[in-house]
Amino acid sequence: MAETSPNGVKVLSPTGAVRPTGTWSVGARAGDFIFVAGMRGIDPQSNALVEGDEPRIRQAFLNMRLIAQSEGATLGDAVRLVVYVTDMARHRPLVNQIQEELWGPGPYPPRTIVEVARLNQDDIVEVEGTFYAPIEK
Amino acid sequence: MAETSPNGVKVLSPTGAVRPTGTWSVGARAGDFIFVAGMRGIDPQSNALVEGDEPRIRQAFLNMRLIAQSEGATLGDAVRLVVYVTDMARHRPLVNQIQEELWGPGPYPPRTIVEVARLNQDDIVEVEGTFYAPIEK
Amino acid sequence: MAETSPNGVKVLSPTGAVRPTGTWSVGARAGDFIFVAGMRGIDPQSNALVEGDEPRIRQAFLNMRLIAQSEGATLGDAVRLVVYVTDMARHRPLVNQIQEELWGPGPYPPRTIVEVARLNQDDIVEVEGTFYAPIEK
Repeated sequence: MAETSPNGVKVLSPTGAVRPTGTWSVGARAGDFIFVAGMRGIDPQSNALVEGDEPRIRQAFLNMRLIAQSEGATLGDAVRLVVYVTDMARHRPLVNQIQEELWGPGPYPPRTIVEVARLNQDDIVEVEGTFYAPIEK
Repeated sequence: MAETSPNGVKVLSPTGAVRPTGTWSVGARAGDFIFVAGMRGIDPQSNALVEGDEPRIRQAFLNMRLIAQSEGATLGDAVRLVVYVTDMARHRPLVNQIQEELWGPGPYPPRTIVEVARLNQDDIVEVEGTFYAPIEK
Repeated sequence: MAETSPNGVKVLSPTGAVRPTGTWSVGARAGDFIFVAGMRGIDPQSNALVEGDEPRIRQAFLNMRLIAQSEGATLGDAVRLVVYVTDMARHRPLVNQIQEELWGPGPYPPRTIVEVARLNQDDIVEVEGTFYAPIEK
């Protein structure tokens, strides 16, 4: 399913990932790094937003994880997370909780978290992850 | 025109690019990656914002492309785009349209798009791109 | 203090850095790149926000610099800065001033600066830096 540019950028579309609805792909590998698009809490089966703040935020992280894993990266191989929320007071504690659930005792990746004015579909949280998984040589 | 740090970061200032007006450069190469600063729809000739939403957004993408191309990367070698808009409903469709125009049928790079409260000069869209173009060895 | 993932991501916690208060680390090295978490103007000694806009913004940059330096990168080795402010008109000039102070005559790294709706602790500025410092082989 993957397409590769002349310079060697591999655009990803792993089985089970959300389907892009516009001019974007879910991820790309270039060299030893994997760049995952901003992920929201969309159910990849139904293509609908998951109901409930906590389940929806969890789904966003799971969507990101699936794409990273398709290229051999675990959550422990994240080198940067940028988390965009639309209500810092309400969503940051949920993001922390879900990261504890998924990363266990850590270590956790470097993170930037900011409250933005709006996300696509008036969604509540979007998470963008960059991962490292050297190609076996 | 390029200056290189002791660790090998090459700061870019290609002919035809917009001119930095503050403490920033338009791009940098480090190893096989090219990092382009957030680009807005400024006409590099006049240094003024292009009039009209669609032409201005197109110019932002063209400004980014010029810098990437100066280091041997095409739009197909983008590994991450972050698009900052100030009105999601109004600008996201235009961004999609211009990406279709510039990337053709794709594939498209991973993208994150968020609505922020404000951009410099009260501008409407800023796009930040990261590219991959291995140095020939 | 550093822990390394199976794929080789080294999570950083250098002496003198701010202490993470949630599910994040201050930085990570992967290959030749160093990814520093979004830094704010917290005094690493007292763990409190520094008083005053200018001193606080300076502290954010110093916090970032310390983490980069712990892996052998100088400010001149920054490949990307993303600066999140909560008041563009008020904070961008201060960011420019502090970058001049810290980078001297330049060159400066590629930068993206956006005004967001809110930062954690209702803070005013957060800066996220990516650096390049090849591992000596």
